[in-house]
Amino acid sequence: MRETRVSRIAMAAPDDVSGIAAAIAVGAIRADAVVAIFAKTEGNGCVNDFTRAFAAQTLRLLLTEHVGAAAAARVALVMSGGTEGALAPHFLVFEVLESAAPAPGGDALAVGVHLTRAMAPEEVGRLAQVEAVAQGTRAAMAEAGIASARDVHFVQVKCPLLTSDRIADAVRRGHPPRTDQTLKSMGFSRGAAALGVALALEEIAPDLAEERIGTDVSLYSSRASTSAGVELMVNEIIVLGRSAAWGGPLRIDHAVMADAIDTAPIYAALGRAGLAPTGQLAPDARDKVVAVLAKAEPSQSGTLRGRRHTMLNDSDISPTRHARGFVAGVLAAIFGHAELFVSGGAEHQGPDGGGPVAIITRD
Amino acid sequence: MRETRVSRIAMAAPDDVSGIAAAIAVGAIRADAVVAIFAKTEGNGCVNDFTRAFAAQTLRLLLTEHVGAAAAARVALVMSGGTEGALAPHFLVFEVLESAAPAPGGDALAVGVHLTRAMAPEEVGRLAQVEAVAQGTRAAMAEAGIASARDVHFVQVKCPLLTSDRIADAVRRGHPPRTDQTLKSMGFSRGAAALGVALALEEIAPDLAEERIGTDVSLYSSRASTSAGVELMVNEIIVLGRSAAWGGPLRIDHAVMADAIDTAPIYAALGRAGLAPTGQLAPDARDKVVAVLAKAEPSQSGTLRGRRHTMLNDSDISPTRHARGFVAGVLAAIFGHAELFVSGGAEHQGPDGGGPVAIITRD
Amino acid sequence: MRETRVSRIAMAAPDDVSGIAAAIAVGAIRADAVVAIFAKTEGNGCVNDFTRAFAAQTLRLLLTEHVGAAAAARVALVMSGGTEGALAPHFLVFEVLESAAPAPGGDALAVGVHLTRAMAPEEVGRLAQVEAVAQGTRAAMAEAGIASARDVHFVQVKCPLLTSDRIADAVRRGHPPRTDQTLKSMGFSRGAAALGVALALEEIAPDLAEERIGTDVSLYSSRASTSAGVELMVNEIIVLGRSAAWGGPLRIDHAVMADAIDTAPIYAALGRAGLAPTGQLAPDARDKVVAVLAKAEPSQSGTLRGRRHTMLNDSDISPTRHARGFVAGVLAAIFGHAELFVSGGAEHQGPDGGGPVAIITRD
Amino acid sequence: MRETRVSRIAMAAPDDVSGIAAAIAVGAIRADAVVAIFAKTEGNGCVNDFTRAFAAQTLRLLLTEHVGAAAAARVALVMSGGTEGALAPHFLVFEVLESAAPAPGGDALAVGVHLTRAMAPEEVGRLAQVEAVAQGTRAAMAEAGIASARDVHFVQVKCPLLTSDRIADAVRRGHPPRTDQTLKSMGFSRGAAALGVALALEEIAPDLAEERIGTDVSLYSSRASTSAGVELMVNEIIVLGRSAAWGGPLRIDHAVMADAIDTAPIYAALGRAGLAPTGQLAPDARDKVVAVLAKAEPSQSGTLRGRRHTMLNDSDISPTRHARGFVAGVLAAIFGHAELFVSGGAEHQGPDGGGPVAIITRD
Repeated sequence: MRETRVSRIAMAAPDDVSGIAAAIAVGAIRADAVVAIFAKTEGNGCVNDFTRAFAAQTLRLLLTEHVGAAAAARVALVMSGGTEGALAPHFLVFEVLESAAPAPGGDALAVGVHLTRAMAPEEVGRLAQVEAVAQGTRAAMAEAGIASARDVHFVQVKCPLLTSDRIADAVRRGHPPRTDQTLKSMGFSRGAAALGVALALEEIAPDLAEERIGTDVSLYSSRASTSAGVELMVNEIIVLGRSAAWGGPLRIDHAVMADAIDTAPIYAALGRAGLAPTGQLAPDARDKVVAVLAKAEPSQSGTLRGRRHTMLNDSDISPTRHARGFVAGVLAAIFGHAELFVSGGAEHQGPDGGGPVAIITRD
Repeated sequence: MRETRVSRIAMAAPDDVSGIAAAIAVGAIRADAVVAIFAKTEGNGCVNDFTRAFAAQTLRLLLTEHVGAAAAARVALVMSGGTEGALAPHFLVFEVLESAAPAPGGDALAVGVHLTRAMAPEEVGRLAQVEAVAQGTRAAMAEAGIASARDVHFVQVKCPLLTSDRIADAVRRGHPPRTDQTLKSMGFSRGAAALGVALALEEIAPDLAEERIGTDVSLYSSRASTSAGVELMVNEIIVLGRSAAWGGPLRIDHAVMADAIDTAPIYAALGRAGLAPTGQLAPDARDKVVAVLAKAEPSQSGTLRGRRHTMLNDSDISPTRHARGFVAGVLAAIFGHAELFVSGGAEHQGPDGGGPVAIITRD
Repeated sequence: MRETRVSRIAMAAPDDVSGIAAAIAVGAIRADAVVAIFAKTEGNGCVNDFTRAFAAQTLRLLLTEHVGAAAAARVALVMSGGTEGALAPHFLVFEVLESAAPAPGGDALAVGVHLTRAMAPEEVGRLAQVEAVAQGTRAAMAEAGIASARDVHFVQVKCPLLTSDRIADAVRRGHPPRTDQTLKSMGFSRGAAALGVALALEEIAPDLAEERIGTDVSLYSSRASTSAGVELMVNEIIVLGRSAAWGGPLRIDHAVMADAIDTAPIYAALGRAGLAPTGQLAPDARDKVVAVLAKAEPSQSGTLRGRRHTMLNDSDISPTRHARGFVAGVLAAIFGHAELFVSGGAEHQGPDGGGPVAIITRD
Repeated sequence: MRETRVSRIAMAAPDDVSGIAAAIAVGAIRADAVVAIFAKTEGNGCVNDFTRAFAAQTLRLLLTEHVGAAAAARVALVMSGGTEGALAPHFLVFEVLESAAPAPGGDALAVGVHLTRAMAPEEVGRLAQVEAVAQGTRAAMAEAGIASARDVHFVQVKCPLLTSDRIADAVRRGHPPRTDQTLKSMGFSRGAAALGVALALEEIAPDLAEERIGTDVSLYSSRASTSAGVELMVNEIIVLGRSAAWGGPLRIDHAVMADAIDTAPIYAALGRAGLAPTGQLAPDARDKVVAVLAKAEPSQSGTLRGRRHTMLNDSDISPTRHARGFVAGVLAAIFGHAELFVSGGAEHQGPDGGGPVAIITRD
């Protein structure tokens, strides 16, 4: 029987892994049990955000030190940039351990990881990427022993983006990519990955037309969270869900925000976890929440509850940066702190302007 | 007996006053009764934000059309830039009318306006500005018939800032200003104006040492909201409070946030107004809230609830822009929309990292 | 016989028209002779740059004061935002006067102005806009008495852009625009306007396929300079050229930069004007240059002289802002100051990464 | 007899050291001879620029692979962020080799390196830092065998900056730093380091009053180039100069720009090197220039040649970013490409608004 352990650890800079190293040193984390590490790093979260690759390089060095290069390479690193507003840069370290005991009265947090093959630049944002991620999601579910899509509560995917170089390369080979805009490629990639998850979880019909990727906001997964980065061309998939076959004190549930301030589903999910704040979680309840993972994006309609927002017209600050900082405030108001995994760009992840929110709690 | 009327009107651009013009045309606003107009405009809210002056110019043209230039010049225009996150650009038009009837069972919203003399650049951020604003606040209270500081719930001040030209001019005259940094001058100006309000409301002792302006975070007003702009050298002061001598259906109350996510005082104030949401205001309750005015700033400590934020170290996005977008999310999560008057830079306005929130409701 | 007068006047802020007002007061500018005013204003030069509309509004007020509203409305206002690097915000005021005498030994500066009809959002970036601008260019040439395309040296066009609202409106009417990206709409609009000029000047064949607009960098005008703004839906066209039918001391010539640092053509043009600096213009020669108008854009190849640039991948600073500041340095190094009309976004204006440079000199 | 070799190598990303690795593999660079590596990396060049530390980490890994950790730690890494405009990210690798032969007819490029002790946060921007850098500069000159200050042509210093954490730490220990503003700390640090160089090179008198650091623009070194970064608390000093005791084909000279477009001194220096372009260097001449190192900053006066610039008032783009992109254009117009080492923030480095330019050429 397996058990998931999740450690939320602050970082003082993108290359500050001292908190993880200290946890390993005292045995609070077993390096050989680590399957995935998420990070919110303090870059701009858009095309030229090198804090993600910097954190990834530093983590690989630390892991290699402990488990060797081959094992270190197998750990899924999901580096998401952008800590706008009061968002606190941090790591979420996921380990899979032997379980001490089965979970009392219900399913425990289960995790499965899968890395797809590398995408060619011209596959990014297209059906080939959707299919790769769908297969990868099913493989990760199988690894986690989660049989039913219903028990999947969060699928985090780190996917590629196109730089000018990669675009130029594809064009030279006679295979123009989906877009020649680097920032736009991030959206297409996130969208295709999210639809791959939606396919695997049977949230959309299998006959997806390619041109609907990135355009048809009615298609979405309510449990996908995808982030694009320059440092990889594979898709890294981490499935989080429930399983009676897993033990330990951690649980997971999710909510779907219909727009950027739709807090009712979050309160409902907290209620199901036995935490029912009026307003903000009190300190004891706050400590029972181990991690919050959410998506943020500006609604394409240009409005929120019928009133105009300016996020799509601001040439000084990218729309995803605006949305992350804003939704961070919404969530921090509920959870009582801002050490939250909020990532930007929720194409096909929840309804337009909204997004999924996963909540990991401990008994 | 007087009565305050407040109209919250959307704008499609900084020079879009069509909503106000339409309200005047149908008699929903009486141009000759307007005493103050607040605006959240969609510039960067920092030094080079010209949307404030653009909106001001356009408003003066509209008002002049209706009441002539002299009367138009007497209307206090408080233009605050920065609509980060989902903040909706809008106007708040304040009129003073003859009251139909006294307010049932309690004090109604009262408003008083005062423009101080122009500040010389070297007075910005210094005791001279504190004193001018203190006198102006008392004058505005007298005009509003508010005798006790206890009945003042919000004092909005629009204050000057220093451009390179103004700094150079003062230096040439042998009177170096408080700072030679344009962005820093905004903070000093806001801080001095806030301390002027604090003096008038007896929130601080009268023997204020000049070097504490902008440095001593233990000194603050819990009801001041100050915003700096390039388009004026006077301080425009609008006092909002309660008075038994005023009638009408509008009420005002305030809360003081101890940090950027301290929502409890806001819920308490809503409770006192007979609106007690668990989480977010329901639509009917939402409509009873006419206006929300709040301050936002990053805590100087660099943390929120003990976790590091990056707002002070981000050279790409100004700290006040980060803070506005984040606090906008916190408040929108409660009020159910983002057409909120959130301004940045809360020096001496509430505790470090927090700020005052005023709520105007209708019976 | 007509004569063009050009006054280059500094501005202290987007609404500072005092320099123009002073020139009118002393008779250095005749308000009733003004046909066009260009401005470099200090906004971001991208979608949410309101300094352009602010300057335009302020200019109209000034002109109306002097010549009445109808005549003021006929003056072409070409407001171009973005004063990166050391670019100095300024106006270029063009008047058409009765000529004292014909130009000695050659053609003098001639100017013609034309405003096209308003574009519907769905026409922006499409053949309809190309055609409208081509017709407008021919009309402006006719007005200026310039018969041959060869004698046209600069065509400045101010064209529309799409905001989220305008896009949504067109979609609602069943006519989706060329793009749903506001920033991208600026590029399409500039490109279509430039190709309209190219058509009129016979620089491209008449059978233009619509999909080549904004994509085929081999098509361009070597004399068009187009800038997009939110404050208009017409295309304002100003043709500058030479004509034996015009008198006065002003001349115009142009160069075409093949890339951002191709200075040889500029030196050649200066040579033809009798000014031949080695390096930088000496002060006397500097004063003979009345105005410099140029385009700047990052090369789509992502390189300059074979070395990688980062302008297309920077999510913090828009590519056109980068390019304007850089090319401003290139030109200032030659002309000896930075009060230069450098605008961004040179789609179909000169070769990829380069652009036209017009130089107005006085004898 | 020693000889300096300088290799200028492009990078595709801050962690792309493949060009250096390839050069080592073919023997074009000897890893054990490397004494210093400069880099222009593509971050924002301000406080939160992590590309510098990322490049440094990657270089140390590469060097360690070849020469072991101890030797790798002795290599001075001067990572300067900010590649605005068309600036091409690149490395400059400096080796010291045994000389094949003495330089024909004159002095050859000599290099000396020195790392000072770590600065405490409260020493940054103060006399202690000035003194440490002065001593370090003399030590580096001695190492390079350069006896006379007259033969020093460029002193590059990488110096520390203060983050919120470092500031808070110093305050806690009862030693408040020179400033509590992170961005401002960079300026103070650069300024103190530059004055340290000025002291060592006898460009200023030894009795420097601390309050003049960062304020008195009349004090400067005409050969210092200092850059601040978050990744170090020491000052890394590289002295470049001439020495008859060194051989090889490389020479160095320098110019001092009096303002951002003062190109005459650069042309004069090129003339002394036997390269005398009218305008831009022709391709053969271009290839004789191995490296160009320059400083850029906005003039504190707010003007360039009497015309207003907006770099100090732009809250969206930091002044040093503006200045780097602009001066990059000025220099690229002369040198014929933009693979230039232009760093920002020239406090006490050349006159206000200007800065030193070093040129390394090969015979």
